[in-house]
Amino acid sequence: MNPPATLAWQGTHLALLDQRRLPDEVTYLACRSVDDVVEAIRSLAVRGAPAIGIAAAYGMALAEQTGESSAAAAERLVAARPTAVNLAWAVDQVRAGMERGRAAIDTALEIHADDIAMCRAIGEAGRQLIEPGCHVLTHCNAGALAVSALGTATAPLYLAHADGVPFHVYVDETRPVLQGARLTAWELGIAGIDRTLICDNAAAHLMGQGAVDLVIVGTDRITANGDVVNKIGTRGLAILADYHNVPFYVACPTSTFDPVTRAGSDVPIEERSAAEILEPIGLSGDIPVKNPAFDVTPEELVTGYITDRGFSTSVAIFDSVTDSS
Amino acid sequence: MNPPATLAWQGTHLALLDQRRLPDEVTYLACRSVDDVVEAIRSLAVRGAPAIGIAAAYGMALAEQTGESSAAAAERLVAARPTAVNLAWAVDQVRAGMERGRAAIDTALEIHADDIAMCRAIGEAGRQLIEPGCHVLTHCNAGALAVSALGTATAPLYLAHADGVPFHVYVDETRPVLQGARLTAWELGIAGIDRTLICDNAAAHLMGQGAVDLVIVGTDRITANGDVVNKIGTRGLAILADYHNVPFYVACPTSTFDPVTRAGSDVPIEERSAAEILEPIGLSGDIPVKNPAFDVTPEELVTGYITDRGFSTSVAIFDSVTDSS
Repeated sequence: MNPPATLAWQGTHLALLDQRRLPDEVTYLACRSVDDVVEAIRSLAVRGAPAIGIAAAYGMALAEQTGESSAAAAERLVAARPTAVNLAWAVDQVRAGMERGRAAIDTALEIHADDIAMCRAIGEAGRQLIEPGCHVLTHCNAGALAVSALGTATAPLYLAHADGVPFHVYVDETRPVLQGARLTAWELGIAGIDRTLICDNAAAHLMGQGAVDLVIVGTDRITANGDVVNKIGTRGLAILADYHNVPFYVACPTSTFDPVTRAGSDVPIEERSAAEILEPIGLSGDIPVKNPAFDVTPEELVTGYITDRGFSTSVAIFDSVTDSS
Repeated sequence: MNPPATLAWQGTHLALLDQRRLPDEVTYLACRSVDDVVEAIRSLAVRGAPAIGIAAAYGMALAEQTGESSAAAAERLVAARPTAVNLAWAVDQVRAGMERGRAAIDTALEIHADDIAMCRAIGEAGRQLIEPGCHVLTHCNAGALAVSALGTATAPLYLAHADGVPFHVYVDETRPVLQGARLTAWELGIAGIDRTLICDNAAAHLMGQGAVDLVIVGTDRITANGDVVNKIGTRGLAILADYHNVPFYVACPTSTFDPVTRAGSDVPIEERSAAEILEPIGLSGDIPVKNPAFDVTPEELVTGYITDRGFSTSVAIFDSVTDSS
């Protein structure tokens, strides 16, 4: 079975899996206007940088279809999540196409298809790492739900599963937002992949028992020296993997490489609200909280990078990105 | 300020802090009969091995006061949590005293006083580790709430605070049961100690930033070779501390030493229910879950043991326990 579809163009509207209701309810929103897409992005019904970008590109196609001004639509879509780089990039791509006389929907479909191809290429680069009977550990959701299809960290898993390889995945619940518990465990389950949810605290114990053969995570950014900026908890997992001699892989499109930033220590780490920690566990807000959303995994703890340009044990795989930028 | 009283003998009844309602409500149960104490132990109103033992000893005193048979009372108290070794030990102590003609309440008060003295001795052994301006990280609740006063891992903190030493504590929330978020953060706050709640996932990031000067945890058992059996997540924390050159201390009474068990790998690790992970985060029960409650920290990752017989960098501090056993 395939992972669930995060979003799909239905000829006249965009169907968007409402991720706010997962895993309790599987509901698709029918977005028929720019307003619908803006609201879906703003309310986090769709999340994950690539998925948001694709949704916005389809939003531009809906503007074209309903006769709305593309300049106004672009402005409203970009404002829906101002920090999302992929969103602005996708909207720009559609507008640039329109200036050349290309229909918005054609560019949107191309962005979507490119993303699917990118996921598949990552999957093929990591496919050989999934040996029969192995136990994989993953963190957060770098899955189909965050991207368009197959995901990044999950792409090798989906391809191996399609090939009939038997394996098992430990899914970190990933406090505080619980993307592992709510999203990754759900999407792997839908695809029929054998998976077990664990508390983040259990990873060291399982590795100590020899129960984990490899770790695969995604990333938000790879800096020039190969450091990995990803969801809080990733650094700890990499250190534990190193201690237990468990290989630690990072799956990502080469577009994630940031050749301008020297090292992870140069990346400002977003601090998020106390409520994000306290609310899911039913505590009130009068406890001082520190809630860094990301952390930095040093390059020397990365066994290999699984990318759309292939697999490599070295950050040099990204060199061509540097050269062309 | 002092930490909150977990339990206190009030002349004619036992006042027990109802830990099920923390941190939202601070309520004391008035236990006036063996039944009341049995119910408090069974329903987890009181938790932590030493605290349960003391409560049961006072339960024997209540039996004496109300004229209930001490044999029947002992049986019911021990059955309230059959796996709690301290409980059976405390009840036996009271009965042995009664056979020598000693009033139950006198033995109960002595057990309580000994526990308080034990906590203070641990606090004094670790007091010098809390330097002005330092940042301590702790995991789970090895605090006043689990013991009788001062706690074990928290005892050096309470003594340093009483001396006016300024310092700060990061409290791991400690999934799945969240003893850090619900209990440790609360009791340190009541005592006026500066503390910040973090997700377990944030520890590696904070250590990487140089924000943690030392780690202090409690333990359920120390094996003959010095391995530490403690709440799930402790092993990971010790590995992270080692990677970042942060000292990692274990605070415990010497009675925690188990000279009969060779190493941590010989200790069966309790697996607990899926509901314990899923319910606090509002997920339903159809996800496969692995929920080990404890893990093993190898002796070589322990910088020092803080005990009621003093501080030592070596498991040899427990040798006299072996000799006398």
